[in-house]
Amino acid sequence: MAARELVVLGTASQAPTRYRNHNGYFLRWDGEGVLFDPGEGTQRQLVLAGVAASSITRICVTHFHGDHCLGLPGVLARMALDHVARPVDVYFPAAGAVYFDRLRLASVAERRVTVRAHPVRNGGVVAGAPPFRLVGTPLDHRTTAIGWRLEEPDGVRVLPDRLEALGVRGPAVGELLASGSVTVGGRAVRVGEVSEPRRGQTVAFVMDTRWCDGALSLADGADLLVCEATFLSSAGEDGLADVSGHLTAAQAARLARQAGARRLVLTHFSQRHPDEQAFVDEARPIFPATTAARDLAVVPLPRRRPAPGA
Amino acid sequence: MAARELVVLGTASQAPTRYRNHNGYFLRWDGEGVLFDPGEGTQRQLVLAGVAASSITRICVTHFHGDHCLGLPGVLARMALDHVARPVDVYFPAAGAVYFDRLRLASVAERRVTVRAHPVRNGGVVAGAPPFRLVGTPLDHRTTAIGWRLEEPDGVRVLPDRLEALGVRGPAVGELLASGSVTVGGRAVRVGEVSEPRRGQTVAFVMDTRWCDGALSLADGADLLVCEATFLSSAGEDGLADVSGHLTAAQAARLARQAGARRLVLTHFSQRHPDEQAFVDEARPIFPATTAARDLAVVPLPRRRPAPGA
Repeated sequence: MAARELVVLGTASQAPTRYRNHNGYFLRWDGEGVLFDPGEGTQRQLVLAGVAASSITRICVTHFHGDHCLGLPGVLARMALDHVARPVDVYFPAAGAVYFDRLRLASVAERRVTVRAHPVRNGGVVAGAPPFRLVGTPLDHRTTAIGWRLEEPDGVRVLPDRLEALGVRGPAVGELLASGSVTVGGRAVRVGEVSEPRRGQTVAFVMDTRWCDGALSLADGADLLVCEATFLSSAGEDGLADVSGHLTAAQAARLARQAGARRLVLTHFSQRHPDEQAFVDEARPIFPATTAARDLAVVPLPRRRPAPGA
Repeated sequence: MAARELVVLGTASQAPTRYRNHNGYFLRWDGEGVLFDPGEGTQRQLVLAGVAASSITRICVTHFHGDHCLGLPGVLARMALDHVARPVDVYFPAAGAVYFDRLRLASVAERRVTVRAHPVRNGGVVAGAPPFRLVGTPLDHRTTAIGWRLEEPDGVRVLPDRLEALGVRGPAVGELLASGSVTVGGRAVRVGEVSEPRRGQTVAFVMDTRWCDGALSLADGADLLVCEATFLSSAGEDGLADVSGHLTAAQAARLARQAGARRLVLTHFSQRHPDEQAFVDEARPIFPATTAARDLAVVPLPRRRPAPGA
């Protein structure tokens, strides 16, 4: 099975630092590659992370503050340079369409990648095709922002030894998976006989926002919750977080706990706090399965939850 | 006297590499700071180089290919974030005004720095105020491009021991410099009695272009010539350079020699050539005073040429 992992491209809010590029997150999910919030410099961070721009199939932008979108022109330019022939789907808040239109045509280009623009107004399921559903949900920031959630439906894991035992081979396997049953040697084999239930995986991407129902809904039961934690409650920044439309590490941890997420990755750190450990230290007493994102780190998705009854 | 130096922020053409950010050059010139061709990531390169965005007084863009301009929004955003109150002058080819307009408003911002836009149509002197004249000259690229030249007029160096000997002190010094003479103790002192001639300095910035008269005119007698050298003649890339509107290192060296430049800094390297030394090796037999720019290097301006008759 192909890798499912989060490649962290940048972790800085507002101003980049020596050690933190502006935001950028690449989620590798089987044959898909979803880029979230490409801040300035994402094009080069992809090079440093060893991620080919051609592996990007979708781009999700939460909002149009510069640290979340100014890398978009460079990423699209790089995809064109690399002769990506298929279209790339870009999802963004409809309220920011004017910025999107400027960004996609921000410089002279002799060749452009085909962009399928998906301005999202009120959230909901914005892409339903396998291997996942993509859901957008409004957040509560200083400008219109939409968080994103990738949901893989629960399904089945095919057991090769059962297939073999029942003589299901070659094209019959495909037919079985597509239609739920196949006749082999005069006997109808049902998919349930050669498989076991498998839980789908969910990744939620919450930034930038105050505490809100939308954030909770995005994070609900997520296997991996990537969440902004710009500030620290322990540094007395709850008020600053609120007025600027952000979360503290403690709030992000409470969000993960209340939503029943399985793992929390904090990111989008203020330059006030050069050491990410401070964010982890604040969050872990509330939600132990917390790590802090670091530029160019790779975070694998947690193993699937056991299927019901397994 | 304040420093005059070139801070190299990035040296990559087209695609950034592990070791080369996209273009970006900051020329510190006494109280002025001129940023040339801010490619994507310039905002962070400024941090890495220790250059405050607030020290930028002017921005000169040669053309609107992405590698020369996509860093503009981030630089302007950073200046706003840093509460720069004075306006910043931005010079660019008028033919690219549509891109400039998109870039300056590419993202949501609650605060913006005041931009004085100077679209330049046919070149000429675009700013005449001390400490230098700024001259734009059209180049020959695949899209409209304008090279830049900063010229300091020849002047005088005041000799403190001569001032002292003639009793010129305090406000009388200012009057002497402003008007050319001052009366001290009943005697008229002329500026020539207390000074010696001093040659002005010139920096030329040539990119992107094929060999052309404009490039020669920009480089004419320059103390420091910063010139693109995307390709290598020694690698058989003359044809590639021509078709893509670029120079090879050998051509840049011939340009420096023919124009009577004093020092040549090569940059804007193709990712085909990871080692900058290849560019230097090709150029030095033609123009010995050549160096290759490296990201975050600082290049001081050469000492002034001796004044005529000195």
